Amino acid sequence: MQTSPVADRLACALDDLHPLFGDRLLTSDAAREHHGSGESHLPAQWPDAVIMVQSTEEVADVLRVAHRHGVPVIPFGAGSSLEGQIHAPHGGISIDLSRMDDIIAVNAEDMDCTVACGVTRQALNEHLRDTGLFFPVDLGAHASLGGMASTRASGTTTVRYGSMRDLVLGLTVVMSDGQIIRTGGRARKSSAGYDLTRLMIGSEGTLGIITELTLRLFGIPEAAQSAMCSFASIEKATETVVAALQCGLCLNRIELADTVQMRAINSYSATDLPEHPTLWIELTGSGAQVAHDMEVLRDLAEGAIRFDTAGTADEATRLWRTRHDALYAARALRPGIKGISTDVCVPVSQLPDCISGIMDVIATTSIIAPLIGHVGDGNFHLVLLYDPADPDEVREAQLINSSLVKMAIAMGGTCTGEHGVGLGKKAYLDAEHGPALDVMRRIKCALDPAGIMNPGKIFDL
Amino acid sequence: MQTSPVADRLACALDDLHPLFGDRLLTSDAAREHHGSGESHLPAQWPDAVIMVQSTEEVADVLRVAHRHGVPVIPFGAGSSLEGQIHAPHGGISIDLSRMDDIIAVNAEDMDCTVACGVTRQALNEHLRDTGLFFPVDLGAHASLGGMASTRASGTTTVRYGSMRDLVLGLTVVMSDGQIIRTGGRARKSSAGYDLTRLMIGSEGTLGIITELTLRLFGIPEAAQSAMCSFASIEKATETVVAALQCGLCLNRIELADTVQMRAINSYSATDLPEHPTLWIELTGSGAQVAHDMEVLRDLAEGAIRFDTAGTADEATRLWRTRHDALYAARALRPGIKGISTDVCVPVSQLPDCISGIMDVIATTSIIAPLIGHVGDGNFHLVLLYDPADPDEVREAQLINSSLVKMAIAMGGTCTGEHGVGLGKKAYLDAEHGPALDVMRRIKCALDPAGIMNPGKIFDL
Repeated sequence: MQTSPVADRLACALDDLHPLFGDRLLTSDAAREHHGSGESHLPAQWPDAVIMVQSTEEVADVLRVAHRHGVPVIPFGAGSSLEGQIHAPHGGISIDLSRMDDIIAVNAEDMDCTVACGVTRQALNEHLRDTGLFFPVDLGAHASLGGMASTRASGTTTVRYGSMRDLVLGLTVVMSDGQIIRTGGRARKSSAGYDLTRLMIGSEGTLGIITELTLRLFGIPEAAQSAMCSFASIEKATETVVAALQCGLCLNRIELADTVQMRAINSYSATDLPEHPTLWIELTGSGAQVAHDMEVLRDLAEGAIRFDTAGTADEATRLWRTRHDALYAARALRPGIKGISTDVCVPVSQLPDCISGIMDVIATTSIIAPLIGHVGDGNFHLVLLYDPADPDEVREAQLINSSLVKMAIAMGGTCTGEHGVGLGKKAYLDAEHGPALDVMRRIKCALDPAGIMNPGKIFDL
Repeated sequence: MQTSPVADRLACALDDLHPLFGDRLLTSDAAREHHGSGESHLPAQWPDAVIMVQSTEEVADVLRVAHRHGVPVIPFGAGSSLEGQIHAPHGGISIDLSRMDDIIAVNAEDMDCTVACGVTRQALNEHLRDTGLFFPVDLGAHASLGGMASTRASGTTTVRYGSMRDLVLGLTVVMSDGQIIRTGGRARKSSAGYDLTRLMIGSEGTLGIITELTLRLFGIPEAAQSAMCSFASIEKATETVVAALQCGLCLNRIELADTVQMRAINSYSATDLPEHPTLWIELTGSGAQVAHDMEVLRDLAEGAIRFDTAGTADEATRLWRTRHDALYAARALRPGIKGISTDVCVPVSQLPDCISGIMDVIATTSIIAPLIGHVGDGNFHLVLLYDPADPDEVREAQLINSSLVKMAIAMGGTCTGEHGVGLGKKAYLDAEHGPALDVMRRIKCALDPAGIMNPGKIFDL
């Protein structure tokens, strides 16, 4: 059990909220634990209470009360964030948005839709199945679209379609005092004032709570073809990626694994893949374009040790399953160990140096750290398989993580490509942003003067 | 001659600045007039002085002094903005950034570059000519890239590549007190904190002055093919656009003109084009893809009165010249009259209703108003050819402009797709944004507490 530092104010707030929410206001240990841990490697930090909201107006109700009493609020979508975004380091109220799962409108002609924040990308794409349209942001987790916007999520298809930053047209947001605003709209572009949509995306609930999103949709391409190719080195693989990007091939996905990760996959999936740096590539477009570009790709990958294409849809599914299972395969290298899935992004040309640099650091430790990445964006993850009960391993894992981040920033990159800052990456923001971090703080203070919006996340004040 | 409302403070500021800038601090009527009018239809409003800066540090010098004395500053790029962005309604100092024209770095492997804010898109593409890369944002004006970012500019290729919002990776910005910050970086994506890059883009110099930009570049496509097709109605043309977008054709440009505009083109260019709603379309990609998609497009446009493709590069150039000359052709309908080029953006499916709605309004007036637009984005312009000396025509032009904006907003669209707000569209922001406008004001006050950054633009405080 944790003791809240805001016990009195909290009690007053819960007194005000109880009549409004009844048994949707939860204070059981089970509810608090579930809402204070999530998928992160960080130790759980429980909220004092959880409220299961069902509408934007209810979110506004909670915020008005929380604002009046100065009680922290933490938005909770699907609980899949990796850097402690849903943790409650200052206690307070976790606002569970998962019941806000209405698909409000689909405008097939304009290829857009409006959804409540608790809708998952899987549920949206299931709903869209008969329209010929889909929403492309494709990440590993079973995440809510509101959470994906809040952490500026991306994934395997970002090389083609962009990330949440690029694909959200507008938002409904509840501000810290309960005011409901709408940002953006349904127009494809606008020059009318400040881009509040993009300001809210990636702000991790520290400026407002996203309750509805208007999203761009895309037509499902006519054809798809997949390939998997192995290289003698990361450099050779990266050269192929750079060439494919420069040629403007119709890349839908281009993913990289290192030798350690390939060993993990062979062991986990009982496959016999070459244990060398490997690219999974999917091309999508018209049949003619895909066929043409696959031939170009084969030429560009002339340095590959092996280049296999999937001849059938079943073969493509099998090929991609090895990629999708990569995290489980990685974790299976040390059963019972979850590890940190860390996440940096650098200019693509810097990948070989960044990866070989961090491999040198890893080699000085006892940590196993398979690598997997969205290499078309220069984004990669290391799964650091350490035992949190072993102080030496903790220290080594922290050394690897901080070394990786410092290298990435020094190469013009970022401490997180897609997982967000939360609690886990806060220490690196000053190195990455310098004085721009003060500008962020000034915006935070202007929009959340009471400091109740997911406090302690991204940066301290 | 205008009298500055901040005469004393201004005199002190100029005393401080003169030793730093010498004869690059201009107070001649010619310099002030040039920097206070630009391409806008609005009456000129001169700054009190103009400083020709040469570096980010010099911009910081000016801002430190202006901040100390509370003197307005107005950034000036190429002077091509259309809504009074460079006007000086409160006097002050125009900071002319056109001499900051260094192309600082081109990273061909990563397909990015860093330029100073005064570089024009034409100069950048000229510089890139031998790299096989280009920067795609393609607007009518000879604009600076800093100005294009400041107004969130787009243009004919936005349907393919996105706007300045999408293509800027990072910025150097001088804040109101002279602090220099760097936003974003060279990584393709990041989840590390607030998206200050996007906040600055479109803020029209009211939050800070953009002095350097890191931009995404693209490989020049292997093949291009152009077509021009005429339809019996705007509806038929729009249906073809929607279908082409849904099929994911390799559209690079898809532009629309109405009957009045086509008449203007025939008269100006001595052509014999059908005087019906017309699409100009360019497909780019691999040779096979372009050829395939052009056949699909021909099928989709089965309702067209006429469908011509350009067989040679020369024919394509001639075909697009009629589009490029459209504004001059429009103005030639009333020689000596410049007109307002107004600019709205709606969901593509709403274009027929929006256009027929505004045509009904135009029919009640004496104004000639040819229409041209980036129809793939739902963005179109009317050139309102009115005589500013005739009060009846002024009233009619204002009626058309405000009716158009109201319709666009009611249809889920925006009062400006790409020209920005400046002074000309301020009146509409409340209708478009509602309470979100207050959030913008709070950000403005937090980042520019002295209110010196391009005051009077976008909204009043």
